[in-house]
Amino acid sequence: MGIEEAKKAAAIAAADFIQNGMIVGLGTGSTANFFIEALADRVKSGLDLKGVVPSSKATQELAFRLNLPVQDINHVPRIDITVDGADEIDPLKRMIKGGGGALLREKILASNSKEMIVIVDETKIVQNLGAHKLPVEILFYGSPATRHKLETLGYRGRWRMTDEGAFFFTENANLILDIAFEAPPVYPEEDHEQISHVPGVIETGFFFNLAGRVIVGYQNGRVDIRQ
Amino acid sequence: MGIEEAKKAAAIAAADFIQNGMIVGLGTGSTANFFIEALADRVKSGLDLKGVVPSSKATQELAFRLNLPVQDINHVPRIDITVDGADEIDPLKRMIKGGGGALLREKILASNSKEMIVIVDETKIVQNLGAHKLPVEILFYGSPATRHKLETLGYRGRWRMTDEGAFFFTENANLILDIAFEAPPVYPEEDHEQISHVPGVIETGFFFNLAGRVIVGYQNGRVDIRQ
Repeated sequence: MGIEEAKKAAAIAAADFIQNGMIVGLGTGSTANFFIEALADRVKSGLDLKGVVPSSKATQELAFRLNLPVQDINHVPRIDITVDGADEIDPLKRMIKGGGGALLREKILASNSKEMIVIVDETKIVQNLGAHKLPVEILFYGSPATRHKLETLGYRGRWRMTDEGAFFFTENANLILDIAFEAPPVYPEEDHEQISHVPGVIETGFFFNLAGRVIVGYQNGRVDIRQ
Repeated sequence: MGIEEAKKAAAIAAADFIQNGMIVGLGTGSTANFFIEALADRVKSGLDLKGVVPSSKATQELAFRLNLPVQDINHVPRIDITVDGADEIDPLKRMIKGGGGALLREKILASNSKEMIVIVDETKIVQNLGAHKLPVEILFYGSPATRHKLETLGYRGRWRMTDEGAFFFTENANLILDIAFEAPPVYPEEDHEQISHVPGVIETGFFFNLAGRVIVGYQNGRVDIRQ
C-alpha cells in the first residue's frame, strides 16, 4: 500500500455517498481523478446521475471518456455534492488548494454546491496551513508590479512554469504565483484578505468554510470520515 | 460649451502636469481620450515622454495612432502619473469606474502609479456614490450562480450586453454585471468587501484611496483642481 492507494480508498468511500438523481461537481487533480473513476464504476453498476460538472478541461475530458453525463456549470439548476482533493487541510477544515492550477474554478464550484466532500490521503493533513506553497492566481497584465506589491507585503514566491520552461497559464489565462511562507501563517484568513486586496490578484488558494465531510485515506488502507 | 468641452478642459489641464522623462498611464473612455489627444499635442510641441502605458486596446490604438511612445505595463520600471476619468467621484475622492469595461486594468494601472490624476466633467461629481450603476467584473464560468449569490446578498443587476445583443466580454474575457443600488450605499467600502468576497467576482468598479489630484471641468469652461 502507498499514497496512491490511500487516495483511491478515500475516493471510493466518497463515491459511496453519491445517490440517484444527483448533480455532482468534479474537482481537479490526482485524487479527484480517482473519484471520477470510482463514480464511473458506480454508474456502470446502475447509479443514475443527473449530471457531473467539471472544474477543468482535464477533468471534463476524463469524465467524457468514462461516459459520465457531463454538464456545463452555467446550465445546471444546482450542484448537490462536489468532491475534490486538497493540498493541505488543517483541523479547522481550512485548506490550501491549487497545486493543479484550477483553484478559481474549483472554488466557484465548491461554493455553489450544497456540500463539498474533501478527499485526501493522510499526508495532506497538517496542523498548520502553509507548510508547502500557496498558489495565487494573478492577472498577466501588470503581473510584475502585482508581484512586487505582494513582496512589499512580505509575500515572496515564484511564477509557476511549465515543464518546458514557459509561464504556466491557467484556463482563465492568468498566471500562478506560488507563495512560500517563511513560517506557517498564524491567521490564514488575514493573509487571504491582504493578498486578495492587491489589484491584479484574482484568487488565492486558501479555501475557508467550504469543506463539509472530509474523507482521509491512509496508506494502511483505512479510511476515516470526519463530519 | 457643453459636457464635451468640460471634459476637454479637464484633459488639457491634466496634460500640463506631465513633464519630460515621465512614463504616463493612460485610462480608458471618452475623457481619457481627450487627455491622450492633449498629451499628443504637447509631444508635438516638444514634450519628451519616456513612455505611455495603455489600460485597454482602444487606448493603445489611439496612442499608437497619435505617435505616442507606447510601452507594455509588464516592461516599464515605474509609472509616474496615470490620468483617467471616472463615472462618479464623491467628496472623499471615492470613485465608481468601469462604464467603459476596463475597470480591472485601470485599477491595476492606477494602483501601480506614483499618482493617479482623475479628470472629470462636473456631472461626475456626486455627494454619494451609487446614483448610477456599479460595474462588477465576473468570471464567465459559474456566472449565473455568482449572480444569484450576489442577489442573495441584496445586489441586483444586469449583464452588460453589446449593441448587437450579445454578452459584453472584457479584455480579460469576463462578464460585467452592472449593479443598480436601490439607495446610495452608506458604506461603499463594505459593499466592495461583500461583493469581492463572492467567488467568481474578479473586481468591482469601486476605486478607493487611488485618486490624487482631481481636475474638474465645467461646462462654462472653468477648470477646478483639487489637491
